Amino acid sequence: MRRAIDLARRTSIVDKSGGPFGCVIVKDGSIVGEGANSVLADGDPTCHGEMNAIRHACTTLGTHDLSGCIVYTTGEPCPMCYGALWWARVEAIYYASTIQDAKEFGDFDDMPIYEAVKNPIEKRRLAGSELLRDEMIPLWREFQAMPNHPEY
Amino acid sequence: MRRAIDLARRTSIVDKSGGPFGCVIVKDGSIVGEGANSVLADGDPTCHGEMNAIRHACTTLGTHDLSGCIVYTTGEPCPMCYGALWWARVEAIYYASTIQDAKEFGDFDDMPIYEAVKNPIEKRRLAGSELLRDEMIPLWREFQAMPNHPEY
Repeated sequence: MRRAIDLARRTSIVDKSGGPFGCVIVKDGSIVGEGANSVLADGDPTCHGEMNAIRHACTTLGTHDLSGCIVYTTGEPCPMCYGALWWARVEAIYYASTIQDAKEFGDFDDMPIYEAVKNPIEKRRLAGSELLRDEMIPLWREFQAMPNHPEY
Repeated sequence: MRRAIDLARRTSIVDKSGGPFGCVIVKDGSIVGEGANSVLADGDPTCHGEMNAIRHACTTLGTHDLSGCIVYTTGEPCPMCYGALWWARVEAIYYASTIQDAKEFGDFDDMPIYEAVKNPIEKRRLAGSELLRDEMIPLWREFQAMPNHPEY
């Protein structure tokens, strides 16, 4: 975690390129991935520290499956990062500050997303609407019927 | 949406490289980003169709801010993608099939993540634990006190 805090310090205080968010991913006692927030630096809203660390670890290990990995992140993950960590199948998450801390000290507000995803997508502040389902279901049926369709 | 379904067909049925997930992002009537699921192709669990389309649109537009963009995705977004679309500040989301469809036809199961994020992180199936908060808070205070600290 101290390494993650170092990364967070570098990106926020030294480089002034984002919030103090750093992340380190460890497997079998060795660092396999690390990252810091690079939303502004990369012009990409998906580049949170955890996301960058996941991608780095996947490159290091040569797989999309981070089973057995432990994640050290300076901030409690937002729903995007939590979802990514879930899909990556990591084993455990440690965080050094809460989403309340991020709001209080940095004006980063994850709570509205956590509130939104509790509701059906039609009823969220950023809402989703169904469209052309009748044209999509045949593709799903074709996928389901395909021998040896991709599984992961 | 028909373009998104085409992308989904290509990646799943033609290339056999993933599920039938495609996404198209439109601004002012023009396509600015598109993507298909490439988790297996890229060995990266973050490479859902929506995520790839967001990154593509950000590159096209030269900004992390996709305000005013409309998203057409073949599958209702998972919490990772929904969070990313939120951070990207898109205007609206259309989806062609539900998370129930993805489970029924493709055995892709987003529901456990949606269930998990309803709870505090300590109580989720993939749980998070606080660590070294006393070493992180001084960095937050330093960030807060820094003149012109990064905002986005």
